[in-house]
Amino acid sequence: MCGTNNATADPTTAAHTISASTPYQRVDDFLSNVGSYKIIESTLREGEQFSNSFYTTEMKCKIATMLSDFGVDYIELTSPVSSPQSYEDCKTICKLGLKSKILTHVRCNMEDAKKAVECGVDGVDLVIGTSSFLREYSHGKSMEMIRKTALEVIEYVKSKGVEVRFSSEDSFRSDLVDLLTLYKAVDKAGVNRVGVADTVGGATPRMVYDLIRTLRGEVETHFHDDTGCAVANALTAIEAGATHVDTSVLGIGERNGITPLGALMARMVVTSPEYTKSKYNLKMLKDIEEYVASCVQVNIPFNNPITGFCAFTHKAGIHAKAILANPSTYEIIDPSLFGLTRYVSITSRITGWNAVKSRVQQLGYSLTDDQIKEVTAKIKQMGDIRPLAVDDADSIIHSYNLSLQQATVA
Amino acid sequence: MCGTNNATADPTTAAHTISASTPYQRVDDFLSNVGSYKIIESTLREGEQFSNSFYTTEMKCKIATMLSDFGVDYIELTSPVSSPQSYEDCKTICKLGLKSKILTHVRCNMEDAKKAVECGVDGVDLVIGTSSFLREYSHGKSMEMIRKTALEVIEYVKSKGVEVRFSSEDSFRSDLVDLLTLYKAVDKAGVNRVGVADTVGGATPRMVYDLIRTLRGEVETHFHDDTGCAVANALTAIEAGATHVDTSVLGIGERNGITPLGALMARMVVTSPEYTKSKYNLKMLKDIEEYVASCVQVNIPFNNPITGFCAFTHKAGIHAKAILANPSTYEIIDPSLFGLTRYVSITSRITGWNAVKSRVQQLGYSLTDDQIKEVTAKIKQMGDIRPLAVDDADSIIHSYNLSLQQATVA
Repeated sequence: MCGTNNATADPTTAAHTISASTPYQRVDDFLSNVGSYKIIESTLREGEQFSNSFYTTEMKCKIATMLSDFGVDYIELTSPVSSPQSYEDCKTICKLGLKSKILTHVRCNMEDAKKAVECGVDGVDLVIGTSSFLREYSHGKSMEMIRKTALEVIEYVKSKGVEVRFSSEDSFRSDLVDLLTLYKAVDKAGVNRVGVADTVGGATPRMVYDLIRTLRGEVETHFHDDTGCAVANALTAIEAGATHVDTSVLGIGERNGITPLGALMARMVVTSPEYTKSKYNLKMLKDIEEYVASCVQVNIPFNNPITGFCAFTHKAGIHAKAILANPSTYEIIDPSLFGLTRYVSITSRITGWNAVKSRVQQLGYSLTDDQIKEVTAKIKQMGDIRPLAVDDADSIIHSYNLSLQQATVA
Repeated sequence: MCGTNNATADPTTAAHTISASTPYQRVDDFLSNVGSYKIIESTLREGEQFSNSFYTTEMKCKIATMLSDFGVDYIELTSPVSSPQSYEDCKTICKLGLKSKILTHVRCNMEDAKKAVECGVDGVDLVIGTSSFLREYSHGKSMEMIRKTALEVIEYVKSKGVEVRFSSEDSFRSDLVDLLTLYKAVDKAGVNRVGVADTVGGATPRMVYDLIRTLRGEVETHFHDDTGCAVANALTAIEAGATHVDTSVLGIGERNGITPLGALMARMVVTSPEYTKSKYNLKMLKDIEEYVASCVQVNIPFNNPITGFCAFTHKAGIHAKAILANPSTYEIIDPSLFGLTRYVSITSRITGWNAVKSRVQQLGYSLTDDQIKEVTAKIKQMGDIRPLAVDDADSIIHSYNLSLQQATVA
């Protein structure tokens, strides 16, 4: 079990050990919100834009309930304007009485905003494209038209006593002066949050840091994963002062999706362990991922952080030896935080005798180190010829021990 | 096809457009190597540490050949000390005459180094744990002992006319002064590269930038993906002056693996399009991933960058409308660079009439905008009830058109 070897090496506090023992301090300066970040969970909005998604009302209610129990601050739903059932489902979820606040995500126009308010949501997330690409090819509006409409819609939503967020779309390909002018105007109009979205998934951590640090107040961020940076960008945004991060379970969304809830938890439980462990019910993660995966008919990716089938499997001899002495050597996350366990594999040609020794002891045999090296060579020999099943190595150990006993008898 | 609508919006040059039109410049300062980074491909070393890996000699040769044809600079192999077959395979691959240089990765001791040189490799990658965790629980050596052994082994490898890299392990939990002292010593001894490894996958982009920018010369970096940052960390390392990045196909390796080759290509084709397109044979990526996936018996993750089944699928009405007008609106990567195509889905309740209009035109019907809005409502109506197959929307369009014709006749 973790931490039984050495109190200072308890992996449940490994992140603290890192901060204390190296010059690479956790980023905890005046901008950073790593100890207070909030999650806007969008499996029921962005996730509905995933190619495979079709949610029944029952699925939506179950997903929303699980996410609320997990501890996310907000749950975002598909626009009620999308279809009649989307409208009904939005109303139904608002009436569930969940701990999480319910949002819906609509285009920045009066008609959509009215429908949203009708549904009884706690907040309305307004969005409009601000890059030259989207202004030219999507809605055709100038920045001045965007500003004018935004102010009217914001005033309306606020007059109904409902929270309102205003987000640009494709923010990282928008002109910075345009963006800041617009954010200043909507801030003055009293929005609760502004949103920054890497809609095409092209932003880098440095681009994120540079943009987010220019903003103040409640800032929500949304990162697509087309270039594999959605988790790091979310972390960097929080370091730069963002207060809220959008996620979806397994990252499902348009194209290959957005920051996954689980991978963000992996990142933040290392960067900000106390806050993350106290705020989120981490042991629910696997059940939530499995339920959503079954709803949208995908498998959990083999290489998924935390819940991938081998995320806590150790194979090379040199790794296995050290992990058996102290799990912190090759694990930055304690699997038990997520209700999971580690596995040390000895069934391959790259195993080592220290790992085999541990298995020999588990099986109750007393072999000398030289004998263990001999049986390790036999395992490697078979591992050179074919893939080994979990019990193959055990069979070789049993057989080796038997031949030793017979030799003694003889 | 991409770019036929507007010359300035050609997605094959989208990254340049970003740099030119926003203040968030590509990081291209004096430290950055984004225009000259090299790949050390470790599917045959780190990848053999993946839980499911068992490679036959034939598989190893085929993978090495594909990676060489793809254009990676180095191919790294499992230590020949691991098993007799590992030794034989290392010799075999060295004799293939590939364009890529062949490396093997061994513990920093004389016995391992001699075996490596015997095999005929172009270079030997030496590694030893330098964090207090690994020094205490893995090999038990002091920094002084590490330095002394390293210098002897480096001298030996160089005397044989073979390239040598010296890497610390668990670098981000090692003491900075210890690390720099050691790197200075091995640099003086004439190593070709030093290596920095985030062995436990806990590093963040800022930690990476802070460490890598202190180093000069050839610097190789190795990032595990336990906290979802392996791609962003690799980019950040290159921005901070790293010259080489370790990858494996689909990221396979210990636990949930390292920086995936494909995701790194997605990142770098956006950050440094000209260099990446000219150096790497991007159209081979899908075949390489599929072959390696079949060798280690996994599926391509549904959300994989570039080759995930829906990486270029657009679903929400607002996205579909814009992508049909100009693909750069919602695509940062042109799928044709990788020999792939995009797909615009209209089979859901969140589709929009502009997307349906495009499909109506593809089917050869002439409907008015009002008629298209009516048929869109019918598609949404069915999309509210059940998941739609690709041809369901077509059936609804055919049926609607037929009823229009019959009404005209009547």
